[in-house]
Amino acid sequence: MLIVPESLIGGLVSPEDAFAAVEATFAAMSRGDAYNFPVVREALGEGRQYGFKSGLDRSGGQLGVKAGGYFPGNAAKGIINHQSTVFLFDPETGQPTAMVGGGLLTALRTAAASAISIDRLARADARVLGMVGAGHQAGFQLRAAARVRSFERVIAWNLHPEMLDRLGAVAAELGLPFEAVPLERMREADVIVTITSSPAASLLDAHVSAGTHLACMGTDTKGKQEVEPALLGRAAVFTDEVAQSVSIGEAQHAVAAGLLGPEAITPLGDVLTGAHPGRKTAEEITLFDGTGVGLQDLAVAAMAVRRAQERGEGISVAL
Amino acid sequence: MLIVPESLIGGLVSPEDAFAAVEATFAAMSRGDAYNFPVVREALGEGRQYGFKSGLDRSGGQLGVKAGGYFPGNAAKGIINHQSTVFLFDPETGQPTAMVGGGLLTALRTAAASAISIDRLARADARVLGMVGAGHQAGFQLRAAARVRSFERVIAWNLHPEMLDRLGAVAAELGLPFEAVPLERMREADVIVTITSSPAASLLDAHVSAGTHLACMGTDTKGKQEVEPALLGRAAVFTDEVAQSVSIGEAQHAVAAGLLGPEAITPLGDVLTGAHPGRKTAEEITLFDGTGVGLQDLAVAAMAVRRAQERGEGISVAL
Repeated sequence: MLIVPESLIGGLVSPEDAFAAVEATFAAMSRGDAYNFPVVREALGEGRQYGFKSGLDRSGGQLGVKAGGYFPGNAAKGIINHQSTVFLFDPETGQPTAMVGGGLLTALRTAAASAISIDRLARADARVLGMVGAGHQAGFQLRAAARVRSFERVIAWNLHPEMLDRLGAVAAELGLPFEAVPLERMREADVIVTITSSPAASLLDAHVSAGTHLACMGTDTKGKQEVEPALLGRAAVFTDEVAQSVSIGEAQHAVAAGLLGPEAITPLGDVLTGAHPGRKTAEEITLFDGTGVGLQDLAVAAMAVRRAQERGEGISVAL
Repeated sequence: MLIVPESLIGGLVSPEDAFAAVEATFAAMSRGDAYNFPVVREALGEGRQYGFKSGLDRSGGQLGVKAGGYFPGNAAKGIINHQSTVFLFDPETGQPTAMVGGGLLTALRTAAASAISIDRLARADARVLGMVGAGHQAGFQLRAAARVRSFERVIAWNLHPEMLDRLGAVAAELGLPFEAVPLERMREADVIVTITSSPAASLLDAHVSAGTHLACMGTDTKGKQEVEPALLGRAAVFTDEVAQSVSIGEAQHAVAAGLLGPEAITPLGDVLTGAHPGRKTAEEITLFDGTGVGLQDLAVAAMAVRRAQERGEGISVAL
């Protein structure tokens, strides 16, 4: 088997690689060639969260599991709080084939999903990118979004405004003017990415103009919420996996409020395969509920393994 | 992290080690210091089964997952059909600490559970051991049982009698007379171990004498069955985990038939901690429903890691 440690991932997997890998797996899910297994998520006490996301992609030949979680005591020990590792197995024989550091890959696959949604659902003439949230993942999101549309400027809001400087530096790197704004000014945005860990809606329905595409990437568990449910009521809603969207994704709140039915939510893979046309009018609001599925993790981990093999990197272990 | 490949396990973990490790984890479960996470089990098509068993043992410091399954196409490729690997993580930081081959360990932890039940529940004067089943795991079961009681002879039955020779050879190694018998003659046994993959009851209520202890080790999924449900109705029933016992264990059938309630099933750990007295009379039939829990796998894998560290074995990988 091949071990690809976390330290190698940055040099091996590009945002373009992640985009291609996640697009392939969303399409495979839409065709019924790939499916996610039930998610295991457990509280270990003292704020620690641990769990497993797993699945099978027959078309990509991927079987595996991402094991990981959140360990708030780590920072004091000089270790990052989010820990994750992807284990891949040969789907024909069940033998382990690879172990891949999953930290950077998680950020890359999440940003790739958001970018795929923008690529397929935002208006082609989108010029203003709105960012809600400025944590560790926001920079990845901004870079990925900038790859798929010719944005002219970035406006951003964060609960703690002092954190916006770091995101501004990413915009500067990309040559994009950057402005910190109140949430009301998100009305100027053509595309809005929300990437917070908020327990209640920040972005309200009234903050969003007709024709906007939203990528809501922060809500991945019960009790998190980024946007007002009314927004999902008037938007065309897309997601990575409908079952997760209605239970642990942003749509959980609109579904609970009776504003949205599961049958009205479209897998993004259906747009990739052509089964769904995507955006229908320039005035429509489209919203991607990115919950994060195990198959995304397997797809980018398999990409890391492929790149490592091409370049003779990683640690090969005879079992 | 330390990698302990399958090939090293036989030289590292003894049946005594497995017995001690599983006893400690059953006791930790009884005290509430350890619990199993939900089991993931998926059919991959073409007869392939795959899944994950995971858990946390706070007292033993174990967090991890056994990933594995059954791949019927392997034999033709010269690979064993059952594949499994245990991954351990530091419960404080979430960092991976070990990867351990799980094939032999699965047999050892299953035999250990059965032996613990015999040690704690069989009559002290048990002399005749009955074996129902003669597959790969039966030999491990026989060896483990022989460690905890002074058996004078072994009687055995298998659906395919020609397979009994191999089990007879194990008995001969242990210096025990061995006889192939019809199921009716299991009435002579003081302890009966069932270890089959049968879809319907083999051992009937009428085949079992008063005072017998049964370890039913084969039923670990819906649709498997080894003994007549009436037997569970008149026995004192013990198990590794009640939730698994009533859903995927041998007790599933007696519970469905209304012959046994979940509240009447005792965790074996309660006997180990003294919370339950175990066998109450010499005439009582005791029955252990061994379903196999993830914590058993973590316990024996952690034992393998300890032994490997003591002896400087395994492959150390810097992540």
